[in-house]
Amino acid sequence: MRLVTIEDVRAAAAAIAPHVVRTPLLPFDSTLWIKPENLQPIGAFKQRGAVNALSRIPSADRERGVVAYSSGNHAQAVAYAAKMLGMRAAIVVPENTPQLKIDATRAHGAEVFVVGITERESRAAELVQERGATLIPPFDHFDVIAGQGTVGLEICADLPDVTAVLVPVSGGGLISGVAVAVKALCPNARVIGVEPELAGDAAASLRAGELVRWDAHDRARTSADGLRAEPSELTFAHIKEYVDDIVTVSEDEIFDAVRQIARRTRTVAEPSGATVVAAHLNRSLPEGKTVAVVSGGNLEPSLLASILG
Amino acid sequence: MRLVTIEDVRAAAAAIAPHVVRTPLLPFDSTLWIKPENLQPIGAFKQRGAVNALSRIPSADRERGVVAYSSGNHAQAVAYAAKMLGMRAAIVVPENTPQLKIDATRAHGAEVFVVGITERESRAAELVQERGATLIPPFDHFDVIAGQGTVGLEICADLPDVTAVLVPVSGGGLISGVAVAVKALCPNARVIGVEPELAGDAAASLRAGELVRWDAHDRARTSADGLRAEPSELTFAHIKEYVDDIVTVSEDEIFDAVRQIARRTRTVAEPSGATVVAAHLNRSLPEGKTVAVVSGGNLEPSLLASILG
Repeated sequence: MRLVTIEDVRAAAAAIAPHVVRTPLLPFDSTLWIKPENLQPIGAFKQRGAVNALSRIPSADRERGVVAYSSGNHAQAVAYAAKMLGMRAAIVVPENTPQLKIDATRAHGAEVFVVGITERESRAAELVQERGATLIPPFDHFDVIAGQGTVGLEICADLPDVTAVLVPVSGGGLISGVAVAVKALCPNARVIGVEPELAGDAAASLRAGELVRWDAHDRARTSADGLRAEPSELTFAHIKEYVDDIVTVSEDEIFDAVRQIARRTRTVAEPSGATVVAAHLNRSLPEGKTVAVVSGGNLEPSLLASILG
Repeated sequence: MRLVTIEDVRAAAAAIAPHVVRTPLLPFDSTLWIKPENLQPIGAFKQRGAVNALSRIPSADRERGVVAYSSGNHAQAVAYAAKMLGMRAAIVVPENTPQLKIDATRAHGAEVFVVGITERESRAAELVQERGATLIPPFDHFDVIAGQGTVGLEICADLPDVTAVLVPVSGGGLISGVAVAVKALCPNARVIGVEPELAGDAAASLRAGELVRWDAHDRARTSADGLRAEPSELTFAHIKEYVDDIVTVSEDEIFDAVRQIARRTRTVAEPSGATVVAAHLNRSLPEGKTVAVVSGGNLEPSLLASILG
């Protein structure tokens, strides 16, 4: 299986530069910096992978547009990338998607199809067939992984003596790309995944050395709604090759981390994005300069208010 | 009177680079970007001016330390800058200062003196005399203004075709420095100050062409606790020379802007910092690409929760 390389990540960085925010590192405490991907225009890192994937679609196929299915941030990412690159986008979302994310997707000019949670893949496949459009998967895609890897490129540029990088794990696209970049540029740094205990399938898989499947209804128990997916063969191949460990955190630890991030860095993190800070605050991790990738910040203001209040 | 020049601002940028976050511009809507100075380690732009001022203290005077008086963000800024540069700091704060800001100042290793609101200048003067320390004023200081001007330098680097820059006005240090940089580098851009209606003394002064004084108790009515100071002769000289207009916003408009900033940019703004976005949303300002300098984000999480909820 062909894995993403640092050259793929470098090419992605050049392709996406006009369309993403170059996020700085923000100090959190004496050993932790956060990489605030919640500051991207769509509120999450997924814009990086989506812009890269769309930018690599052959020009002959562009006018037939793109299709994506997603529980939220990937939907907005593809909608935003399509707008940036002048393409049509059709987005299929499950009916339990937060209204904030549906509104944001429509605001980028995409058509949104709301379907039952088990029907999203089939509805997306229909749209691809009807329109001759290109399907952009949320993580199981070479160019998406390369795009997410630009987060790792920037971390190593800004903090070359980083000793550990903490990354949320869901489908595994972000950690796959980040690990490729970090292991190439900062080979002494450890790359550590973080999952909610209630969706700890990737941690179980890494321990077992093979993909362990959890039922989707079990994974849906976590409040970290961006971390309910499971790795693919492609992302798990990257994880086995480049990721040192995956740890899990509790729901209470995640909510406390949302509070701490707001207070110490003046940014809004969604529960999925806060898992990495929860791991820093509650688990024994390697000493030294650590970066936590806060992957996104899309949560309903009323939920944020209840977490902070 | 000698005014700050673009060369002074460029020198400040070089001096402070290791100790400040290079903040990006974050898109807010189709014509507005925010410059999120709430992402600085101390939660406000004032770190820029403080680091610059301390870095210019002659080495013979450094070991006697620095003294500052401030309602909050300047206190943290001087404490932080002193820690960065290995100097002692004594900070005098009025008794109505939010506890969050007092705690943060102590956490940077400074001595904190809490005094009655009318005694802060005299207590600071005593400390200067007792210790032979250097007083660092919040805004009425050439090197502080030059440091704050680096915000304008970065705006023009990131968005060279900017047409308007909105800046909160209190003592006027920030807008003075920003206006010097913007008028030098982006001469077609307008620089517009924003104040709370309840502390609109600088707007009144600019209209009158001379400093108009409002009673401190009147200025204290606004919830924007960082905007209760009044310009000095030095900052007003910069404002008259370089600032195109100063507009005012209501308390309700400010709170709504705090909500909008959290939702659209995933950052936490204090009321003072949100005034500029309130002006964008509610006043007729020049068309075109606009940058709003969100000056800080230090507010009690419970207050943020009540604004969002």
